[in-house]
Amino acid sequence: MSAASKILKPVFIVSGVGSGSGTGSSAARVFAKAGYSVALIARNPDSLKTLAEEIKSDGGEAIPVPVESYEAEALSAGFKTILSAFPPSTHAVRGALYNTGDAIFKPFLEITPAEHRRSILTHLEGGFVFGQEVIRLFLQNEPVDGRKGTLIFTGATAGVRGGPITSSFSAGKHGIRALSQSLAKEFGRQDIHVAHCIIDGRINSGNVRKDIKQMPSELTAKDDELDKFMAPVQIAENYLWLVNQHKSTWTWELDLRPAHEKW
Amino acid sequence: MSAASKILKPVFIVSGVGSGSGTGSSAARVFAKAGYSVALIARNPDSLKTLAEEIKSDGGEAIPVPVESYEAEALSAGFKTILSAFPPSTHAVRGALYNTGDAIFKPFLEITPAEHRRSILTHLEGGFVFGQEVIRLFLQNEPVDGRKGTLIFTGATAGVRGGPITSSFSAGKHGIRALSQSLAKEFGRQDIHVAHCIIDGRINSGNVRKDIKQMPSELTAKDDELDKFMAPVQIAENYLWLVNQHKSTWTWELDLRPAHEKW
Amino acid sequence: MSAASKILKPVFIVSGVGSGSGTGSSAARVFAKAGYSVALIARNPDSLKTLAEEIKSDGGEAIPVPVESYEAEALSAGFKTILSAFPPSTHAVRGALYNTGDAIFKPFLEITPAEHRRSILTHLEGGFVFGQEVIRLFLQNEPVDGRKGTLIFTGATAGVRGGPITSSFSAGKHGIRALSQSLAKEFGRQDIHVAHCIIDGRINSGNVRKDIKQMPSELTAKDDELDKFMAPVQIAENYLWLVNQHKSTWTWELDLRPAHEKW
Amino acid sequence: MSAASKILKPVFIVSGVGSGSGTGSSAARVFAKAGYSVALIARNPDSLKTLAEEIKSDGGEAIPVPVESYEAEALSAGFKTILSAFPPSTHAVRGALYNTGDAIFKPFLEITPAEHRRSILTHLEGGFVFGQEVIRLFLQNEPVDGRKGTLIFTGATAGVRGGPITSSFSAGKHGIRALSQSLAKEFGRQDIHVAHCIIDGRINSGNVRKDIKQMPSELTAKDDELDKFMAPVQIAENYLWLVNQHKSTWTWELDLRPAHEKW
Repeated sequence: MSAASKILKPVFIVSGVGSGSGTGSSAARVFAKAGYSVALIARNPDSLKTLAEEIKSDGGEAIPVPVESYEAEALSAGFKTILSAFPPSTHAVRGALYNTGDAIFKPFLEITPAEHRRSILTHLEGGFVFGQEVIRLFLQNEPVDGRKGTLIFTGATAGVRGGPITSSFSAGKHGIRALSQSLAKEFGRQDIHVAHCIIDGRINSGNVRKDIKQMPSELTAKDDELDKFMAPVQIAENYLWLVNQHKSTWTWELDLRPAHEKW
Repeated sequence: MSAASKILKPVFIVSGVGSGSGTGSSAARVFAKAGYSVALIARNPDSLKTLAEEIKSDGGEAIPVPVESYEAEALSAGFKTILSAFPPSTHAVRGALYNTGDAIFKPFLEITPAEHRRSILTHLEGGFVFGQEVIRLFLQNEPVDGRKGTLIFTGATAGVRGGPITSSFSAGKHGIRALSQSLAKEFGRQDIHVAHCIIDGRINSGNVRKDIKQMPSELTAKDDELDKFMAPVQIAENYLWLVNQHKSTWTWELDLRPAHEKW
Repeated sequence: MSAASKILKPVFIVSGVGSGSGTGSSAARVFAKAGYSVALIARNPDSLKTLAEEIKSDGGEAIPVPVESYEAEALSAGFKTILSAFPPSTHAVRGALYNTGDAIFKPFLEITPAEHRRSILTHLEGGFVFGQEVIRLFLQNEPVDGRKGTLIFTGATAGVRGGPITSSFSAGKHGIRALSQSLAKEFGRQDIHVAHCIIDGRINSGNVRKDIKQMPSELTAKDDELDKFMAPVQIAENYLWLVNQHKSTWTWELDLRPAHEKW
Repeated sequence: MSAASKILKPVFIVSGVGSGSGTGSSAARVFAKAGYSVALIARNPDSLKTLAEEIKSDGGEAIPVPVESYEAEALSAGFKTILSAFPPSTHAVRGALYNTGDAIFKPFLEITPAEHRRSILTHLEGGFVFGQEVIRLFLQNEPVDGRKGTLIFTGATAGVRGGPITSSFSAGKHGIRALSQSLAKEFGRQDIHVAHCIIDGRINSGNVRKDIKQMPSELTAKDDELDKFMAPVQIAENYLWLVNQHKSTWTWELDLRPAHEKW
């Protein structure tokens, strides 16, 4: 690592910060505590601002990056915002999490082409453009301990298995997983670590609680006590672990689920 | 099967007929010979017309269905064309093949968001809308030997494995595979058979030969003798096999590759 | 194909013929009708003899090959029996099915090491030695339509997914699947076709009916009407399809399940 | 955790310690440093003794547990040795690693049934009995942070993909993977964590260096510089991470490979 790169502040970019109680926001808090300046991307400017304030009041550095959508132009505009707040003269983007993608749990014939397109673009145009923006930034870095940066994708059970009411969602999540594997193979040799995490359980966040009420009854757990949900902060700790893996042992994919999950 | 359903002519719909020398057009010929009226969907009206004429001159029934694109509106318009040529009073759609999807073999950072979007929509909006249109038609059928219809998706190696230059393509193909699995699970119990075929080798068609010249050298075979390519008519024979499987033994997924393929 | 190879009678070897009402015996009947002389391997000499008589009375050629076990020595002795009944001067082994492996459905801690070993050896020593014997015979054949022979392994859901009461069984079935994939890759280039079939449902045979009564209640179907079971003769028809695939489109793996299976 | 369980020393059992320079011995060192008493199982008593001495001279607690083989009786005898050295009155077994299994890299027809059996039993009888012994011990523990114990299996690329010269090895490794998945599903709800790690690269140990010389040339890397090998101590750090995961986010499977691995 050159002298210059040592003094640049490391930046972690999180997309999909959502309501402030899920995986994205937990990742933001965990990486901020670990010394990263965090850039928070989401479509909802209010929750973004609240989270950025919270992190700053805890002594961290955080910026809200509201985006209109996860389509190419809107998302690339978000990266311009990040680079003007965290310029290359003082900061280096060294980690990023693509945590975006609204789940659709519906019988196939009830999904409209319009909502399917929105979901597909959010997953796959968003993940693609996010990946290009992040990897271009990583490539400018000096390696630290053999690594220029880590890009993590949040996946789901639906990313490895299609089910009767996940036709649209699983198409998006399978696509994200494929993208992450391609990038891991293409960029590992350029010292860039790409990982995919299969979230195989329900996350204990406000969003999910609400979702459950809207799910068909076969999806609502008989045993939905809170201690069988996944703690988002623990997912985030696993992401931090990935970012710190030694270059001789990088993980592309790990699954996470509650101890008591039936699978 | 009611008396009425017995006298309806069975229809097979093929998307992705392309240049007339690949999997789609071979499927059209094979199913026409097997007694199906075939509807030929593609973006190129000229090759469509040639193929329809060829099938008709061989005694079959075929219509060209040119579409502007595989996006929702254009593709649904194609189905209206099919239903007016093959109306429910005389015909019943009993089989369909989604064979569409242009491959992108490029380093990740050289792919533009626009060409990625086009590929994603062709694969995943097209496959989704095609599936909805076809399944809605199948559901109107009386079962014959326990089956209302068969929907086949042409997949690829990239549908089960991402690679260094298939980031965009494998996202689309993984998505198609997930969609097909979801539909197989959701609609099997409604007597609809959905299958996915992993084409794991290069197809001996005009298109592919041209593609090979454009591929990075690591992808062009050292042993590209013609007898190591897949014969599209043989892929089509496997599709016909799927359509005729007994209802107690339906296949969701099979892989096909040349005997001498290195894999 | 040389003149000599044309006049040799093709032989199909089936292991795991069992009680005469399952996949193995159906395969024997189907291949006998298709013109193969069949060699029937099983541990129970009585049911073997009955099946061989049945096939012969239908005009086929069949020999019973009772084996003490599926361990190396006993199984290789069975192949000597086959070769003396069907000598290379008049016959050529061109197909084989390894259909052996007793299922254990028990909580892990209730399985004894001795029964686990028996299961593992039946699956994996048996499958290995069967594979070696068969492939050595295939290698002596002239190719017919580019194929020297086809070796099929009967797999199961447990071959792609371990479950709470399949710890031992799924180890054996995963092993068989891995073996089949390795052999497909190693011997495809030598014109030998190796395939694996995932039986994902319950088979309508005497054995299975009895097994069901012994299964933990969570495994017995609520909807166990006979028409949701797999017809073994239909599994066998799929095996015959594999044996006849064109060399440009060989399948390594296909799954089979009833149309109404919940999966 | 009861008062009693708090004062029991945690024990970590490692099988497959081998020559002292690979994954097993690194795991022993890493867990000893993390406060575990370690029990070292291997077939070679000399290297075991050396490693136990090394760990003790570093202030750890370690016992050598030589076994004749990994077959049931011999391995169970090893567990008696462990329990007399680390009795339940003072120790509690809380972690275990099954790291055993000699690789066979040979064309299928060159492997003898006897060496295949040895490999299969070492993988699958050994892994099975090791699992039973360990899980019975875990079940006696009070949970600490919701966990009674963690059982890790070292897997390999061959555990997820059969290849032309891995027919025997991949059967064993697929079986180990299936076993680990079954146990993860069966025992998660009993607060026991079972994990599987896919080692997808060559390990920088004495053993591997020697193995490489014996491999067919297609398996020896063109780029075999040491920095492309996996550091066994880093594999062990990942195992320690698994043992410390929060109960709301347990990993069943992760893959590890060098940053620059071609895959």
